Amino acid sequence: MSLFWSKVVHKLHPYVPGEQPKISDLIKLNANENPYGPSPKVLEAIRLGTSDNLRLYPDPNAEPLRQVIAKHHSLNIEQVFIGNGSDEVLAHIFQALFQHDGPLLFPDITYGFYPIYSKLYQIKYKEIALMDDFSINIDDYIQANSGIIFPNPNSPTGRLLSVAEVRSLLINNTDSIVVVDEAYIDFGGESAVILINEYSNLFITQTLSKSRSLAGIRVGYGLGHADLIEGLMRIKNSFNSYPVDRLAIIAGVASIQDHNYFQSTCDKIIKSRDIIVKELVKIGFKVTPSAANFIFVSHPKYNAADLAKELRKKSVIIRHFQQNRIKEHLRISIGKPEENQQLLTVLNSLV
Amino acid sequence: MSLFWSKVVHKLHPYVPGEQPKISDLIKLNANENPYGPSPKVLEAIRLGTSDNLRLYPDPNAEPLRQVIAKHHSLNIEQVFIGNGSDEVLAHIFQALFQHDGPLLFPDITYGFYPIYSKLYQIKYKEIALMDDFSINIDDYIQANSGIIFPNPNSPTGRLLSVAEVRSLLINNTDSIVVVDEAYIDFGGESAVILINEYSNLFITQTLSKSRSLAGIRVGYGLGHADLIEGLMRIKNSFNSYPVDRLAIIAGVASIQDHNYFQSTCDKIIKSRDIIVKELVKIGFKVTPSAANFIFVSHPKYNAADLAKELRKKSVIIRHFQQNRIKEHLRISIGKPEENQQLLTVLNSLV
Repeated sequence: MSLFWSKVVHKLHPYVPGEQPKISDLIKLNANENPYGPSPKVLEAIRLGTSDNLRLYPDPNAEPLRQVIAKHHSLNIEQVFIGNGSDEVLAHIFQALFQHDGPLLFPDITYGFYPIYSKLYQIKYKEIALMDDFSINIDDYIQANSGIIFPNPNSPTGRLLSVAEVRSLLINNTDSIVVVDEAYIDFGGESAVILINEYSNLFITQTLSKSRSLAGIRVGYGLGHADLIEGLMRIKNSFNSYPVDRLAIIAGVASIQDHNYFQSTCDKIIKSRDIIVKELVKIGFKVTPSAANFIFVSHPKYNAADLAKELRKKSVIIRHFQQNRIKEHLRISIGKPEENQQLLTVLNSLV
Repeated sequence: MSLFWSKVVHKLHPYVPGEQPKISDLIKLNANENPYGPSPKVLEAIRLGTSDNLRLYPDPNAEPLRQVIAKHHSLNIEQVFIGNGSDEVLAHIFQALFQHDGPLLFPDITYGFYPIYSKLYQIKYKEIALMDDFSINIDDYIQANSGIIFPNPNSPTGRLLSVAEVRSLLINNTDSIVVVDEAYIDFGGESAVILINEYSNLFITQTLSKSRSLAGIRVGYGLGHADLIEGLMRIKNSFNSYPVDRLAIIAGVASIQDHNYFQSTCDKIIKSRDIIVKELVKIGFKVTPSAANFIFVSHPKYNAADLAKELRKKSVIIRHFQQNRIKEHLRISIGKPEENQQLLTVLNSLV
């Protein structure tokens, strides 16, 4: 506490990210990181880019990466915004597009950063309860609002909305921005990117942290109508000219270009998810249908916090949230087969 | 323009950074970049760090780098804040520490981002005119304010305040934060860091972009009382959990640890600055005394915009600002001896 703090600082309750433990032999299934490393072509590109040129500022708008991402999604470069992780892109969206009178709508169970951004930018919001099966009912969002945001698939539930449902939401909500946070879309969902040229109020965020294995490099992006991108650019260029560094631009370009590696990694994770789900169901777990690189589970006979504690004792860390409605659930990131097996072995011994 | 923009977006006039030209054989003296590459130890550390670990999130607060910087400045780790370039640190300072009733004070001729941050966070500000010789008169800042910020040395003038002058300002201004932006302090100034344990309202920013040759990597930091750092942390953790990536943390640590390389690079630039100043004076330029890696010059007989244009034709780019009071001046970054010689040759042919 300090007398020198701005008023807003006193009211903030910052986001708590998944723990980054210092101990190295843990099985880390708590932060939805990709168990496979980045494409070898990405690592090679970074090494080649590590030169005296690092003395020079990067391209302020990461143009080479914008171009590659635009091409990848069959969009124009003016429809692409690059940021320091999708968290930074989301923060700019909240400031650039959500500061209006009405309430911003998002699910009651969702990415924990949304209420935090709202407080940071003093945006009124209303949490819309998920259905009992943790699905989003899009009809619940047809009400006065100054914006709508949800992850698809949702986090921490993993549940997916179809493109048809996103379209239906857009048809019924034309006066404010609908942001679809597609951090986990590559693990079995269909992206709503194909709707961008039809709906000027649709904004999509994606990240290289999950399906591209680059959480350590910090690249995310936003896709939408050029006017929305310009709004974000104005915020970005009033905040930090160069948020994405030279090596991150190089890594991003190489990553998007290595489609085969990306696809094979995603396929492996989807396959592992299917196996682990079957095994958990066998020992009595209830598993929410997931289209993400994590699953959301509960066991009718065991307390989730206790299970998390016991797993931790056996060197497996997963994520347990304190929120009332989900405190009997665990979110488990999909690891490599041998890590998943270790998780299953420990859980088998516990239940 | 878009109906979906938040109100604040309409009023923003974003910062325009020094051009990053695509043509590679230009002599680039326009963005105060270091003409020498980063320490070879930094490049080696980045290459070694380029591994599968990039799939994992970085340490959210860049703790290894915080530790090294704290040690370097003989401070505690709680007195250090790391950001994505000092621009991000400054943006957080404006939001965390300057949103109060009174006006924020800064020089009329200074870093162009200050009024832009003020608009982004809707902070009232008052520009204090520099003296005719472009020096800051600290007595002018003894008036009601909600904060004071200036670069030391100032940009684009290069003029330096002594630590005694900074201390005097702090003694006379105890009710609001004084931020000293020391982006250029390593080129001949004395840092006010030694005052941090004495004055709880002093905040200092530094960067690895200039004297550490890492503009392309994006690392800056803030130093101040632990309570002020906590205020910034709250903003940062409500904005972006991981703004500094794994390779930037590694590069930063290696850079701070290679003191000899840093010192020899700074020494070379200071020596080059002395030579170029002497040569420019010989051909009639007026040169503002500089303690930075750039100089601020004018010629009584030649129009600055014309000189900039002619230099550009000969492949030398320097920075010319449109602001009325300085539109007859040019800001020239110090290059390698051969680049400076090329600049002098062209100017000799023009005047």
